Amino acid sequence: MNQHNKLIEEHITTWVKALPQGGLYAPMAYLMGLPAKRVRPALVLMACELFGGRAEDALDEALGIELFHNFTLMHDDIMDAAPLRRGQPTVHEKWNVNTAILSGDALLVKAYQLMAKRPDVSAIFSKYALEVCEGQQLDMEFERRDDVTTAEYTAMIRQKTAVLLACALCVGAAISGANEEDSNRIGAFGEHTGLAFQLRDDLLDAFGDSAKTGKQKGGDLRAGKKTFLLIRGLELSAANGRNELREELAKPAEQRDVPRMLQALEELGVRNEAERAIQAEDRKAAEALDAIAVPEERKEPLRALTAQLMARNY
Amino acid sequence: MNQHNKLIEEHITTWVKALPQGGLYAPMAYLMGLPAKRVRPALVLMACELFGGRAEDALDEALGIELFHNFTLMHDDIMDAAPLRRGQPTVHEKWNVNTAILSGDALLVKAYQLMAKRPDVSAIFSKYALEVCEGQQLDMEFERRDDVTTAEYTAMIRQKTAVLLACALCVGAAISGANEEDSNRIGAFGEHTGLAFQLRDDLLDAFGDSAKTGKQKGGDLRAGKKTFLLIRGLELSAANGRNELREELAKPAEQRDVPRMLQALEELGVRNEAERAIQAEDRKAAEALDAIAVPEERKEPLRALTAQLMARNY
Repeated sequence: MNQHNKLIEEHITTWVKALPQGGLYAPMAYLMGLPAKRVRPALVLMACELFGGRAEDALDEALGIELFHNFTLMHDDIMDAAPLRRGQPTVHEKWNVNTAILSGDALLVKAYQLMAKRPDVSAIFSKYALEVCEGQQLDMEFERRDDVTTAEYTAMIRQKTAVLLACALCVGAAISGANEEDSNRIGAFGEHTGLAFQLRDDLLDAFGDSAKTGKQKGGDLRAGKKTFLLIRGLELSAANGRNELREELAKPAEQRDVPRMLQALEELGVRNEAERAIQAEDRKAAEALDAIAVPEERKEPLRALTAQLMARNY
Repeated sequence: MNQHNKLIEEHITTWVKALPQGGLYAPMAYLMGLPAKRVRPALVLMACELFGGRAEDALDEALGIELFHNFTLMHDDIMDAAPLRRGQPTVHEKWNVNTAILSGDALLVKAYQLMAKRPDVSAIFSKYALEVCEGQQLDMEFERRDDVTTAEYTAMIRQKTAVLLACALCVGAAISGANEEDSNRIGAFGEHTGLAFQLRDDLLDAFGDSAKTGKQKGGDLRAGKKTFLLIRGLELSAANGRNELREELAKPAEQRDVPRMLQALEELGVRNEAERAIQAEDRKAAEALDAIAVPEERKEPLRALTAQLMARNY
């Protein structure tokens, strides 16, 4: 474990231990206590150091971002009726829906107790927090729609996923007093990294080595989940008069021929297109980071974390 | 409409008009647009003026408190499966549960956008917001328990209801730079006023003139709702070997003999006890306000609002 993660885990452990017993605090302690990568708090510390600040001075805000992330997980799991989170029962399963709603609400308040010590940090945080809510709303709306475009999908995952990485980085930048241009640059780095990560996640679900991803190959396709691949595949199928995807989606999930769907996506060029989109996001992320005029060694932790995030999935 | 309410309604209207269309913002606009008394924002402005500040300087925070209050209504209505709010369909009925969760979350963020412009205000707000969540959690726990005491009940309504009045007043006091002692006094005024109000609400549900309250007489008793009256009535019944309340509660709600329950409460002295408890809270509220050394005329709006709140129910 590196120095940042050590600091973060210690801070989280102290926070969890200081919580009151039972009631709406037990679900917070439970969810925050499950093993997790703590990517977002690490980004807060790294961005703070990038611009010359001390990681120790950003620890509360790093924790605040992780509390917010866990708040979104607690509520999203209710909305998605998800039984498991990080391999363990979700809060609404282990307790009940009402407790999960209320404990999540209180967790958002606890996040703000840490994020609102500085008005500048609080303003950044609120702006992005609203975007995360908007992204989740779009995600739910898209489930009921059949005409979602890839542009809409990308805008949705930008808000739902990528924006919180940008938020973490901009908060760290604010704490170390970065100027507005640099703050925009590090935010762009976070957004493009987040988009690349989510698109790669979609791609690996379909074409990854299931022995390495630990997931059933093509699980999203079998479930008919509207990811970049399926949305783009349907767009191109319509333009090319191909029917495989639509035929398979018309069947019940368990009867879908996933290899036939994968072959269609290959032949339509969707796999290549997704790979190019990921490369484009990676490149934009790198350009944004390159444009920040600080000693190169300060960028190393961010480059290493990004590489690790991307490698993890293969 | 008085000057405070005019300022508040204008500020709310402007805020609602500036919301993005649709998505998770439509439920916010709907709920905030329903006619309401706006007691809490008025308290923010009154406390600000009490200590020599200008109402105009506290308008954002007054709105923030009202947004928070509406956030709690949106989520509490889900938890209570309530079909109506202010005579109109609740958000989860008009839209759906997921939208009500998410729109409520975003409303809490919007509240913080207004409350976190000043770290002192934000700290006060977060402390009380957690208490409100804890109060709602206790309320839900009490529904599943048969051994709730009147002391526990009072502690619960203090957190769930009274504390937000204290919060509104302490926020107003902070904006006008009141000292800690005065802040504690105005907070105590709010808490005791809130407790008196809630206890009177319980009392009126049972013994009020239904032509004036607009509610079916004894509706809480028929539903077996654990209010001060029923809890205290059961305590005293056990001590006095009386069984009417327990017998009636054993029946299905629609078969309960409400007049018999009311008579038992009268004879056990519960009605008198509740009236004395309300008077005691009213007196403590008045004492707290008396102890604040500002010109008497500045206290008038608070005394008038309190009187109006208490009178409204009879």
